[in-house]
Amino acid sequence: MKKIQGGVCASIGFKANGVHCGIRKNKTKRDLSLIVTEVRASAACVYTQNLVKGAPILVTKKHVADGYASAIVCNSGNANTCNANGEEIAEQMCSLVSDATGIPASDVIVASTGVIGQPLSIDPIREGMPSLVSGLSEEGSNLAAQGIMTTDTISKEIAYSFTLGGKECHIGAIGKGVGMINPNMATMLIFITTDAAISPAMLQKALSADVKDSFNMVSVDGDTSTNDMVAVLANGCAGNEPVTAPGKDFNAFRKALSKVTTYLCRKIAGDGEGATKLLECKVTGAKSKSAARTVAKSVIKSSLFKAAMFGADANWGRVLCAIGYSGADVDVTKVSVDFKSRAGELAVCRNGSGVPFSEEEAKKILSEKEIEILIGLDDGNGKATAWGCDLTYEYVKINGDYRT
Amino acid sequence: MKKIQGGVCASIGFKANGVHCGIRKNKTKRDLSLIVTEVRASAACVYTQNLVKGAPILVTKKHVADGYASAIVCNSGNANTCNANGEEIAEQMCSLVSDATGIPASDVIVASTGVIGQPLSIDPIREGMPSLVSGLSEEGSNLAAQGIMTTDTISKEIAYSFTLGGKECHIGAIGKGVGMINPNMATMLIFITTDAAISPAMLQKALSADVKDSFNMVSVDGDTSTNDMVAVLANGCAGNEPVTAPGKDFNAFRKALSKVTTYLCRKIAGDGEGATKLLECKVTGAKSKSAARTVAKSVIKSSLFKAAMFGADANWGRVLCAIGYSGADVDVTKVSVDFKSRAGELAVCRNGSGVPFSEEEAKKILSEKEIEILIGLDDGNGKATAWGCDLTYEYVKINGDYRT
Repeated sequence: MKKIQGGVCASIGFKANGVHCGIRKNKTKRDLSLIVTEVRASAACVYTQNLVKGAPILVTKKHVADGYASAIVCNSGNANTCNANGEEIAEQMCSLVSDATGIPASDVIVASTGVIGQPLSIDPIREGMPSLVSGLSEEGSNLAAQGIMTTDTISKEIAYSFTLGGKECHIGAIGKGVGMINPNMATMLIFITTDAAISPAMLQKALSADVKDSFNMVSVDGDTSTNDMVAVLANGCAGNEPVTAPGKDFNAFRKALSKVTTYLCRKIAGDGEGATKLLECKVTGAKSKSAARTVAKSVIKSSLFKAAMFGADANWGRVLCAIGYSGADVDVTKVSVDFKSRAGELAVCRNGSGVPFSEEEAKKILSEKEIEILIGLDDGNGKATAWGCDLTYEYVKINGDYRT
Repeated sequence: MKKIQGGVCASIGFKANGVHCGIRKNKTKRDLSLIVTEVRASAACVYTQNLVKGAPILVTKKHVADGYASAIVCNSGNANTCNANGEEIAEQMCSLVSDATGIPASDVIVASTGVIGQPLSIDPIREGMPSLVSGLSEEGSNLAAQGIMTTDTISKEIAYSFTLGGKECHIGAIGKGVGMINPNMATMLIFITTDAAISPAMLQKALSADVKDSFNMVSVDGDTSTNDMVAVLANGCAGNEPVTAPGKDFNAFRKALSKVTTYLCRKIAGDGEGATKLLECKVTGAKSKSAARTVAKSVIKSSLFKAAMFGADANWGRVLCAIGYSGADVDVTKVSVDFKSRAGELAVCRNGSGVPFSEEEAKKILSEKEIEILIGLDDGNGKATAWGCDLTYEYVKINGDYRT
């Protein structure tokens, strides 16, 4: 497997673009993105489990019910959620794409991100559509990545090449975070393209399995968005023998998918609203996989622990506290905790009690940009990783006046 | 029922005191408190549900197993949690009280609050005990309230007089918050005294029922402490016919207890770490009481919503989002939201969608110190109230370097 350039356009047959159409007032910010495949693709999606669902989620569910799609359109600056005419507007977005590209509206995936509860006007989208479509190109992935950003400080894209049944395949993605991030079965907006040939059923199976260990293990602020969506389009242009059942090829595809999703998890957590640090919590020795996930997620979500990491304070008691209230079945007298970064590794807790350590050494390790929190439970073989970020003044600032 | 002075000493037969013994470096901060009753009292406690439990919790459980106690000793500055010799130290604290007062060690309730995972030396407690005991008085409630404070900015005490079977009774309490606050079955440190005569079983019944609607509905930061404890001592000195079964007198006692606990919930939430505002989320029309609690707690815990309140931003979409991911069974198309304070009341959402409102009016209402968030679910008779506070720069500051 090799890391390559091109994001969602790294796969054969995909084009993308992103433009400023006027949903956002700031003209330097792109706010409308489009990805299209010249060959109709197998499509799989996972969505937010929030009962309050963005209108685009409801429309997309209908459009991919048959397992196929050819385009993804997405705006930023407005979530099109909790609006009386939301579904109508989302359907209009698909129709506008259809009119401009010839792709049936029912083959368009639609997504929105931004403020909840403010009516979304179709006008800027209608006006922006011609330039959005005419500008589609195989170099457009980064423009599309920019068009879906909200409070993200960096655009997020990634691509890999891999081999399936002797054929070189590609998989790429763009994604955005970075607030209201606490996915549950799906997360954020992530659009993945691949030219591998794989049936809709197997694509959905791969995606649904993957998110449990990838996006569902990311938390920026514990708030599960109303608009989370991960969509994968697989157009088969690589020419491999189609993957239609579990086996070696399916496993190879899952591995490639996991490379892409894990990369984006780290990017989204590290770019969490106001974050100065990426936190990676690795739990081993849990009674079960599920217990490991519960513990890792509980630690990564603790406001107190996140604030301590911001202050580079080795306050491991807060790690123990979060393990204890996680709900997982844990023997607290066996717990060990280590902090690790490229500056070193330090044991701070053994058998549920503190061990002496150098505060100076701890400060050095915790002052790095990427921190690993290693938790050993010594009670089984379950393991899991969760990604998060520190809690900072900047998070409060961003969210104290996001809307106004 | 009448609000009175005196805190935990408002009830007949109780004395209290708080001193600086040296656990904290800052000599102006009291760090050791004691409450004693001259008549052995019915005792009821509820504790944290965190699997990681402070050593004092384990010792207290043993000491109140028979339903009676005569003293409460509590230190601040060190939680005596995750220490190999924690239980031994907690037992020593009880023995020191016993030596100085003649109260059996097995009748002493012990509690600690502060940093987790740092060994607690018995030396300052031994040295401070003589002055702690010699200074016990009927005017000592506020000194005791000061001695249990950590990041609290104000000491918290309250008392009421009420009538039980024709006799005037009293009930008073001291309490502390204000970080690691997300009680589950118990919370924080709350010590309640009453001179009402009530059996241990009925006292426990009253307390266990009360906390579901009081302390369990408070959240400052979503972190359930390892040391939460609510303890009630009822010494019977008021001379009322003892309450030994459900009925009119039991209900009157519950009402008095609820007055005290509700007052402390508001005080603790409003004094939440870094808080500038008290948030009170009132849910009505839920399918069940339990659904109402779930919704209210979810909103009050949302970091995004809390940050919006800090910024006086009427971002009601975040309220809808938190309702949607709460896990409660809610028909989102029926939800209404209003913001209310002494500056006015404003409808912002009806039937799950936004309604036009004046941003200026909203800003005025949300700039007050006490904000009510009124959520109507129009789906039944369940109602509940939760208390919390805004998320501020100061919270991050306090917790970024609390330990060092």
